[in-house]
Amino acid sequence: MIDTLRQHWASGAVVYNAWLTIPSPWSAELLATAGFPSLTIDLQHGLIDDPTALHILHTIDQRRCPVFVRLAWNEPAAIMRALDRGAAGIIAPLINGPDDVRALVAACRFPPEGIRSYGPVRVGVAHGVAEPAAVARLPVLMPMIETAKALEQLEAIADVPGIDGLYVGPADLSLSLGLPVPVDFHAPPFRAALSQIVAVCRQRGLATGIYANPDIAADLAALGFNFITIVNDGDLIMKGAIAALRGVGAS
Amino acid sequence: MIDTLRQHWASGAVVYNAWLTIPSPWSAELLATAGFPSLTIDLQHGLIDDPTALHILHTIDQRRCPVFVRLAWNEPAAIMRALDRGAAGIIAPLINGPDDVRALVAACRFPPEGIRSYGPVRVGVAHGVAEPAAVARLPVLMPMIETAKALEQLEAIADVPGIDGLYVGPADLSLSLGLPVPVDFHAPPFRAALSQIVAVCRQRGLATGIYANPDIAADLAALGFNFITIVNDGDLIMKGAIAALRGVGAS
Amino acid sequence: MIDTLRQHWASGAVVYNAWLTIPSPWSAELLATAGFPSLTIDLQHGLIDDPTALHILHTIDQRRCPVFVRLAWNEPAAIMRALDRGAAGIIAPLINGPDDVRALVAACRFPPEGIRSYGPVRVGVAHGVAEPAAVARLPVLMPMIETAKALEQLEAIADVPGIDGLYVGPADLSLSLGLPVPVDFHAPPFRAALSQIVAVCRQRGLATGIYANPDIAADLAALGFNFITIVNDGDLIMKGAIAALRGVGAS
Amino acid sequence: MIDTLRQHWASGAVVYNAWLTIPSPWSAELLATAGFPSLTIDLQHGLIDDPTALHILHTIDQRRCPVFVRLAWNEPAAIMRALDRGAAGIIAPLINGPDDVRALVAACRFPPEGIRSYGPVRVGVAHGVAEPAAVARLPVLMPMIETAKALEQLEAIADVPGIDGLYVGPADLSLSLGLPVPVDFHAPPFRAALSQIVAVCRQRGLATGIYANPDIAADLAALGFNFITIVNDGDLIMKGAIAALRGVGAS
Amino acid sequence: MIDTLRQHWASGAVVYNAWLTIPSPWSAELLATAGFPSLTIDLQHGLIDDPTALHILHTIDQRRCPVFVRLAWNEPAAIMRALDRGAAGIIAPLINGPDDVRALVAACRFPPEGIRSYGPVRVGVAHGVAEPAAVARLPVLMPMIETAKALEQLEAIADVPGIDGLYVGPADLSLSLGLPVPVDFHAPPFRAALSQIVAVCRQRGLATGIYANPDIAADLAALGFNFITIVNDGDLIMKGAIAALRGVGAS
Amino acid sequence: MIDTLRQHWASGAVVYNAWLTIPSPWSAELLATAGFPSLTIDLQHGLIDDPTALHILHTIDQRRCPVFVRLAWNEPAAIMRALDRGAAGIIAPLINGPDDVRALVAACRFPPEGIRSYGPVRVGVAHGVAEPAAVARLPVLMPMIETAKALEQLEAIADVPGIDGLYVGPADLSLSLGLPVPVDFHAPPFRAALSQIVAVCRQRGLATGIYANPDIAADLAALGFNFITIVNDGDLIMKGAIAALRGVGAS
Ligand SMILES: [Mg+2]
Ligand SMILES: [Mg+2]
Ligand SMILES: [Mg+2]
Ligand SMILES: [Mg+2]
Ligand SMILES: [Mg+2]
Ligand SMILES: [Mg+2]
Repeated sequence: MIDTLRQHWASGAVVYNAWLTIPSPWSAELLATAGFPSLTIDLQHGLIDDPTALHILHTIDQRRCPVFVRLAWNEPAAIMRALDRGAAGIIAPLINGPDDVRALVAACRFPPEGIRSYGPVRVGVAHGVAEPAAVARLPVLMPMIETAKALEQLEAIADVPGIDGLYVGPADLSLSLGLPVPVDFHAPPFRAALSQIVAVCRQRGLATGIYANPDIAADLAALGFNFITIVNDGDLIMKGAIAALRGVGAS
Repeated sequence: MIDTLRQHWASGAVVYNAWLTIPSPWSAELLATAGFPSLTIDLQHGLIDDPTALHILHTIDQRRCPVFVRLAWNEPAAIMRALDRGAAGIIAPLINGPDDVRALVAACRFPPEGIRSYGPVRVGVAHGVAEPAAVARLPVLMPMIETAKALEQLEAIADVPGIDGLYVGPADLSLSLGLPVPVDFHAPPFRAALSQIVAVCRQRGLATGIYANPDIAADLAALGFNFITIVNDGDLIMKGAIAALRGVGAS
Repeated sequence: MIDTLRQHWASGAVVYNAWLTIPSPWSAELLATAGFPSLTIDLQHGLIDDPTALHILHTIDQRRCPVFVRLAWNEPAAIMRALDRGAAGIIAPLINGPDDVRALVAACRFPPEGIRSYGPVRVGVAHGVAEPAAVARLPVLMPMIETAKALEQLEAIADVPGIDGLYVGPADLSLSLGLPVPVDFHAPPFRAALSQIVAVCRQRGLATGIYANPDIAADLAALGFNFITIVNDGDLIMKGAIAALRGVGAS
Repeated sequence: MIDTLRQHWASGAVVYNAWLTIPSPWSAELLATAGFPSLTIDLQHGLIDDPTALHILHTIDQRRCPVFVRLAWNEPAAIMRALDRGAAGIIAPLINGPDDVRALVAACRFPPEGIRSYGPVRVGVAHGVAEPAAVARLPVLMPMIETAKALEQLEAIADVPGIDGLYVGPADLSLSLGLPVPVDFHAPPFRAALSQIVAVCRQRGLATGIYANPDIAADLAALGFNFITIVNDGDLIMKGAIAALRGVGAS
Repeated sequence: MIDTLRQHWASGAVVYNAWLTIPSPWSAELLATAGFPSLTIDLQHGLIDDPTALHILHTIDQRRCPVFVRLAWNEPAAIMRALDRGAAGIIAPLINGPDDVRALVAACRFPPEGIRSYGPVRVGVAHGVAEPAAVARLPVLMPMIETAKALEQLEAIADVPGIDGLYVGPADLSLSLGLPVPVDFHAPPFRAALSQIVAVCRQRGLATGIYANPDIAADLAALGFNFITIVNDGDLIMKGAIAALRGVGAS
Repeated sequence: MIDTLRQHWASGAVVYNAWLTIPSPWSAELLATAGFPSLTIDLQHGLIDDPTALHILHTIDQRRCPVFVRLAWNEPAAIMRALDRGAAGIIAPLINGPDDVRALVAACRFPPEGIRSYGPVRVGVAHGVAEPAAVARLPVLMPMIETAKALEQLEAIADVPGIDGLYVGPADLSLSLGLPVPVDFHAPPFRAALSQIVAVCRQRGLATGIYANPDIAADLAALGFNFITIVNDGDLIMKGAIAALRGVGAS
């Protein structure tokens, strides 16, 4: 299942992702049913708690739809917890340099390579592996590029062995570059940063991910992004509700 | 807050309602924030459990947005539980005749008028009332018209004192009349039933509610419905997700 | 533990009970720690949900403090669920006559005596019994006297074999008798009803319970009540909070 | 998936079932992973609450392992709730005669055949059907034979159209027949009852289920039972724990 | 709402706060209803879990009653999580010097000022702001003074820009100063420390908070404290229960 | 209760422990009922969330069965949270040297000895102590030996004052030593490490714990281990289920 994702990228395909912030497996199940090839549980800004994150993993991981976890913080206990529970990938926020990435990778690998504690309780159930090397190879690892510091050390970050791609957090990156939110994807300095990230990833065969929306998706795909978050469960409700109220002239 | 709803109807306004099936206060809070003037927790077909229903009432009832509960079954313990917890209204499914409606009303009124047990634990907090008559007058009561039997006894149902309106369940009504689901709102026999319900309500000053969607809302308002459910939280996610995937050519 | 309760009553002692409405084992544990010899989970007007009721039983039943369940409704499935989970007693609301009491008792006894399904999953753990007759004898059964109808049939109700006492719901009884809430415990017709209930219980060796408060407790004990609820967890918070704000001149 | 179950029975195979009483999707997932071809959520004597029952359905129903719900009571609201949420089958307790079975079947069928309300919220997601006739045909229906009354009306019960089999509750049946618990499966009157049930089912092409254990399973299969519950999650823990303590000489 | 709090302090008023340790929105709602102008969720010593903390924020923040979060630890992920979810203020425990305070402030401010990640998911809903500077200005920040080290660096702590006040943890401060618990508020060295903290705050226009109780509140207000926690939900239950049992002669 | 454990070890007895990974108090209660003299909540690799860990402590700690918490990470906030809630002991993972142990001990002791914040909210309820020194002395502290680094510094680790024993994590230790998982307890280098750990503990009067299984328990007891985890709740289900399916010829 996870290898399917890697093959997609290898074949040049774009993977569209849905972002989960509502604490319920039901909204997650609806997004998987709608056809999304991957989902991401947002443990940073989302309202999803720890037991519900596990329920979502329980619910989705038999559907051939890999579930990523976006961490609240790049720390080993949180990384190991997500992986033991069957997360197919990790999106790590606020990475500032190669040391942060090395810490991420080390938390996913068993000794002597890394520092991960062995206890793949749900991994065998979710992904059918238990052998340490197989367990360690499983998760798709994506450090986030969303600070000016990370941009300065972009090549060093991308050179750390063990990662599958980089994932852009546009709002944080924009603020960190002194640019506004809501993000202006067309602002030249922002666009330059995006192009640079795509280029660095391409040179190394890494996937390039970004949090986006349906309006900007085609543009970002054209720019070279191949892992694009196009919906957020809460936004779908909010935008759909506002549109419905407008449609009946009630807002 | 609830009286505002009654005043809206008295003034001829249409109230647009949002339907809750996702077990989370967050999706409910988003719909209230989007501007819906009322919400309905669906305890029948929705995936909302008892503690989450209470969390939704806790969350929404300070927002001047009345929260209805659509019961799983027209039974007194469930009615009293919803009302004690602060539900602003009750939508009672599968009503077949005036006896069912009398049972509904009796479960909302204290002795000697009815059989309700006195214990308005959250009502004072949510609506600022504790005096029995005030507590009993509070909830908006809406028996559902969704069976052929109910249609046959429509006037007797509408004549039961104490109700505020009738609420149409189109899918069940359609099946019960030997018509298909998905519902064809334009099928003459179905339309005739809707017109009959509107007429019976109008004669008695009752509100007329229906579960619908944005596409059919204007048509139903023109027909005389003034409490129209136009969105369902799960549908907003499913439809929005499918539209987004189509927009990027990924479905 | 439960027999201790019966022995207390047999010895002429008054048992003071605390009422649980907050959905948390912690508030229950505090009340048991404070020294209450029994607690009652209120599934009718309280805000306690089904999984939390179980957590409270898990938490308290090793503390030699019997936990009663006040049902939302006198129905067999709810009675059996409470008993299987380890409830030490049942307080059944809105009893109107001896048939209601016979239904209550039947739901607690196994065939051929009653209709209870055998599955004492937590009873062995909580109370150390599994043999059907012992399991059936365990719970303290208390029909509530809180309607005018029940008062009319008081002797017939009290004569139903298998019950341990009667429990008065003062607010409902007051409303049902055409008297006000808040309850006036000193109103002659109300007082007459209480005296009648105590007398009927005494003649039969039944305990006499009532929902009350600290101010009226001594008076009710003098009247002959020997199972008196004197605190409600939510009231302790509300009254204590108001007193504290008054104490600092902030209300 | 559910049809696979029906085909198994049609082909003469025995289906071994695991019984769920622990309120967690994780213990359920372990039993599905161990290889059980069906699971049953026990809402009657188990400690599983409503939201956890839904989590278990979310978790298991993509694993090609049908999940039954054993109801707390044979009532339409509970039946419809289980089916809307994706239960693959219903095991209905304490059936006393054909009227009870007709009520069960009616609660699973839409008008005009039955009284089920249309709202297959998770059924489409779990089983890929939404058309009313397909939705109604889906669940495997098994009335329980566990009272002397049911035994007396066995043929009338088995003749009600729409059921897939009968399921024996041995403890209740034993008590109801004046026999002991723990059940003596070899007691002649009990064995006679079992043989009679198997014979009645075979004549009608119905499956014959029973709650059992590994020791008695082969015997019951030889008797003709083809849906045999052999493990209960709580018992596996209790028995395994006791065996382990004995193994180290610590009990 | 939050600015109201700042205005109260600016006008010289004392704000009385209630402390939440019971994991339920209901006890929180009762305290807000009782009239408290602010509440604090104790994530350090309280028994409140992460999803319940969110439910409390959902429940209270429409009541014009700011909700503080007392962190379990002064760490950026926890600070950002509380703020994204709508906390009106942060009380940060075990601060030892100005570096700890600078870390606290940085976690609340977006780049380039701080390191906070932008994702004010519930802030717009709870407080009506989304613009980064407005979001960052919102929360009331209160480092705790409860160690001897903090007392030594009191002025340096109070000089860190961006904080609204200091909050005293008396039990920890007492132990750290070699004094006993329960705290003796009248012990000269303890009193000297309190006076010093008040003086340092006054010079800088900072609020001065403290965890206290009704008996000592007037004294502390006289000393200059203007944010005084006078009740704790669990204590209200425990003390009220003991008083009630004493009142009936049962303890 | 905890002192009983220390006395057991002092008397030369072996304590057999059960490991909890299923998020339910019910499976924990079954293991305590089965006779285990101690339980451990695994917050690292188990699927137990924070509120369920509290429910387990609520449930078990009146049963004279001490409940340990195995931390997800050796960090002070997590240690203090477990202790405040009534954990009888701490098993700290991935200890690499004496500094890690000193940090563990400091987080359990109040100033001036350590850095623990005073707030023993449930400790008084669970263990009957509130006085700081008594509270601090209570928990059984067990650093884990499961890395090559820890083995190198074994004596220095064991010499840190305040610990009660060392606990071996065999899988991690095996991987860290370049040996396989599943662990080969008989491999000479692994066995040498175990012997060394036992010897170092014995010299200092420390208990020696290890995560094991029933098959190897006698061997490990003979080697000198006196705190041996012999069952894991999830394994009991998985192994029992597979054995049952094999027993009926269905796997
Ligand atoms: Mg970001
Ligand atoms: Mg309907
Ligand atoms: Mg009552
Ligand atoms: Mg049965
Ligand atoms: Mg403190
Ligand atoms: Mg380990």
